Amino acid sequence: MSIISLTTDFGDLYPAAMKAVILGINPGVQIVDITHSIRQAGIREGAFALYSLVPYFPAKSVHIGVVDPGVGTSRRALTLKAGPEGEEQFFVGPDNGLMIPAARRLGNMEVYEITNKEIMLNSGISTTFHGRDIFAPVGARLSKGMLIETVGHRISDFVDLDFGNVGIDGPFLVGEVVFADSFGNVITNIPEAAVLKFRNFGSQVEVNGRKVSFVQTYGFVRQGEALALIGSHSFLEIAVNKGSAALQFGLKSGDPVAIKVL
Amino acid sequence: MSIISLTTDFGDLYPAAMKAVILGINPGVQIVDITHSIRQAGIREGAFALYSLVPYFPAKSVHIGVVDPGVGTSRRALTLKAGPEGEEQFFVGPDNGLMIPAARRLGNMEVYEITNKEIMLNSGISTTFHGRDIFAPVGARLSKGMLIETVGHRISDFVDLDFGNVGIDGPFLVGEVVFADSFGNVITNIPEAAVLKFRNFGSQVEVNGRKVSFVQTYGFVRQGEALALIGSHSFLEIAVNKGSAALQFGLKSGDPVAIKVL
Amino acid sequence: MSIISLTTDFGDLYPAAMKAVILGINPGVQIVDITHSIRQAGIREGAFALYSLVPYFPAKSVHIGVVDPGVGTSRRALTLKAGPEGEEQFFVGPDNGLMIPAARRLGNMEVYEITNKEIMLNSGISTTFHGRDIFAPVGARLSKGMLIETVGHRISDFVDLDFGNVGIDGPFLVGEVVFADSFGNVITNIPEAAVLKFRNFGSQVEVNGRKVSFVQTYGFVRQGEALALIGSHSFLEIAVNKGSAALQFGLKSGDPVAIKVL
Repeated sequence: MSIISLTTDFGDLYPAAMKAVILGINPGVQIVDITHSIRQAGIREGAFALYSLVPYFPAKSVHIGVVDPGVGTSRRALTLKAGPEGEEQFFVGPDNGLMIPAARRLGNMEVYEITNKEIMLNSGISTTFHGRDIFAPVGARLSKGMLIETVGHRISDFVDLDFGNVGIDGPFLVGEVVFADSFGNVITNIPEAAVLKFRNFGSQVEVNGRKVSFVQTYGFVRQGEALALIGSHSFLEIAVNKGSAALQFGLKSGDPVAIKVL
Repeated sequence: MSIISLTTDFGDLYPAAMKAVILGINPGVQIVDITHSIRQAGIREGAFALYSLVPYFPAKSVHIGVVDPGVGTSRRALTLKAGPEGEEQFFVGPDNGLMIPAARRLGNMEVYEITNKEIMLNSGISTTFHGRDIFAPVGARLSKGMLIETVGHRISDFVDLDFGNVGIDGPFLVGEVVFADSFGNVITNIPEAAVLKFRNFGSQVEVNGRKVSFVQTYGFVRQGEALALIGSHSFLEIAVNKGSAALQFGLKSGDPVAIKVL
Repeated sequence: MSIISLTTDFGDLYPAAMKAVILGINPGVQIVDITHSIRQAGIREGAFALYSLVPYFPAKSVHIGVVDPGVGTSRRALTLKAGPEGEEQFFVGPDNGLMIPAARRLGNMEVYEITNKEIMLNSGISTTFHGRDIFAPVGARLSKGMLIETVGHRISDFVDLDFGNVGIDGPFLVGEVVFADSFGNVITNIPEAAVLKFRNFGSQVEVNGRKVSFVQTYGFVRQGEALALIGSHSFLEIAVNKGSAALQFGLKSGDPVAIKVL
C-alpha cells in the first residue's frame, strides 16, 4: 500500500480530477488530502503545510503540491527525493519553492526536472491544469515504484524558499507569521529551541506589545484569553482559548512578530 | 479491510497529520471523514454527528473523535467499546462526553482510560495535539485488532453527556436544537416516536409560535416555505424548502423549541 | 479495486453516512469526493461537475450524484450505463437531469429506473435521504459487479438537461455561464472549437462589453488583470490572474455571456 498526499489551493472539484488520474494508474494507492484551502497562489503557506506534515508520513510517500500561479508559463515542473537512504519520500510539483522546505527538512534532497512526456497524461497537456495532466500521473507512477531518474535530469538551480529570518533585536525575539490555521491560531517561524532559551512556561511575554501568558496548552488560560505556546508544529504560536488570535491580533502570513520577555 | 472514522473541529490540515500517523500503522485501513467542521469546542454537536452516523458503519469500525478544548490539561483520554457481542464498534477520544451518546446508542458500552504510553506516537506527545499523538495511533492499533484492554484499565466515572430533555408542557411538545446542518436544517432532540404520538403527517403545527406544515419531505411545500418533518436522523427537524431554517427561525444548537399541535 | 465518486450539495456530515453504507457493502472500494459544495439544489452545476470529471475516471467507475430537491416526492431514482463497450462507467442518482450530460458525453447511454427494493438499505428507506438509503447501496453493489438490469427496467422518458444554447448573434459569440469554480473562474458553455474558429490566442476580445486579453494561461497577464482562455474543462473561461472573475464581472451560473472579437 502506497500513499499520495495532495496540497493545493484548488478548493473544490479539481482535486477529484487529480484523484481520478492517480487511481487510473495506481488503483490501490491511499490518497490523503493535506489541504485544498491554501490561499490562492499562497506558495509560502502551502510550503508550510507540507513542511509541517511530512515528518508524520511513512517512507515512500509521494507528496503532490499544486500552488502554481505560474502554470503554463516557462516555470519548470519538478520531482524531489529526500530523507534517509531507503526511507525517502517523494515530491512532485512546480518549481516555485513550494516543496523545498519540506524536502530539506527530511535531508538528502535531490531535485529533478520533469521533462519525460511519456509519463504525463496521454490525452494531452492543458496550459492551466498541470496538477491533473503532469503532477498526478508522475506522482502515481512514482507511488508504483518508477525510478526518479525516469522523470528527467537532476538540477541544482531550483527556486528556493524559506520561512523568513528569526533573530534577536535588543529585548525582542523577532520573526514573522507563516500560517494562520482554521482555528485562527497564528503560527510563527520562531522555533521551539529559540523560545525556550529565553523563557520557561508559566511566565508572561509581550506579543507585538500585548501581554499574554506563555503556557503549555490552550486550556491553561480562560476562555477568550490570548496565550503564547509551543504549538504542535514545534514553533511559537499565538492563540486565543476558544477564539481566534488571527482576528484578535490582526495577524496574517508574512506579518512581523516581536516577542518581549517580561 | 478495516474502517476508521474521524470527527473533529479541526477544519483543515490537522486531519491529514492524523491520517499520516494512522496509515503508518495500518496502511490498508479505510479512513472516512465524518466531519472536520464542528464549531470550535462544540462537544455536543460533535457528539450528535457521531450519534447520528454510527448505526450506518459496519462492525469493528473505529471512530476517533477530537473536539477537545481540554487537550493537554488533566482531562483523560478514553477508548470505548459498544454494540452487540461480536459486532462491536470502537471509539477513541477525550473524556468530555463526545463519544458517549453514540456508544450508548449501540449498547453494551465499556469505557477504558488510555494510559499505556507504548501505544502512543513514539516520537513524543505534544500538549496541544493528542489527535495526532495519542488518538490516531491508538485508533490505528485498534483497527488492526489490538485488544481494548491493552489501552489501560476500565473506568465508570467518565464525563457523561446527553442531548437535553424532551417533554410535554400543556399543549406544547418541548425540546431543544442539537444540530444545524450545512443546509440550515435545524435538528431537534425530539424523537420520531414522540412526534408521531401527537400528530400525523399532512397537518399543521406551530414551531416557536409560527405555523408550518408537518409533512414527509422538503418537496411537499413550496420553495422558500418552512416545514416540520421527521428527518433522516429520526428526530423532528425544522427546514425550509431550498432555504435555511437556521436563518429564518434564528435557531442554533441549544436553543429551546416548542411544538404546538393545531 | 473499484471506484465510487460522490457529487452532492450536502456540505458536511451526510457524505459520511453514504460512505459508511458503501463500505459496509464493498469494503475495498476507493471513494472519491468530486464535490459536496454544489449550491443547494443546483442541479445544473452538479451536472457540469460530473460532465467535466468523468473523462478522467477509469472504466467501471460508479458515479453517485445527489443534488436532489425532489427527494421523497414522485421523482424516480435512476441508474445509467455509458461509454465504449467493455469500458462503461455507471451513474446512480435522481431523475432530474443531473447525470445526463456526463453520461451522454461518454456515449452509448442506457437509463434504468431503480425499483428493486432488495438492493436498497435493508433497515428502511427515509423520505429525505435517498443518497444514504438508495443511491449508496445501489452504487456499492454496482461497484461489486451487480448487473445493471438488476436495478429495474430500462426507460427512455428520463428528465433531460443541457448547458444551454451557444450561437452567433451578429459580431457576438453568445452563450452562458455554467459554473463558477472556487477560484472565481467563470466557465461558459462555449466550447473550445467555437472559440478558436473566431480567434487565436494573443488577441483581444470583449466579454460583456469589457476588453480582455485572450491568452493561454493565467500567468500571461498581470496580477489582478482579467483574461479569457480555454480552461482545463475545454470551454471558454473568464478569469482574473490571482483574483476572482465571478466577483469582477458579477457573473454566476445561468448568466448570459457575449464575446466580441476585436
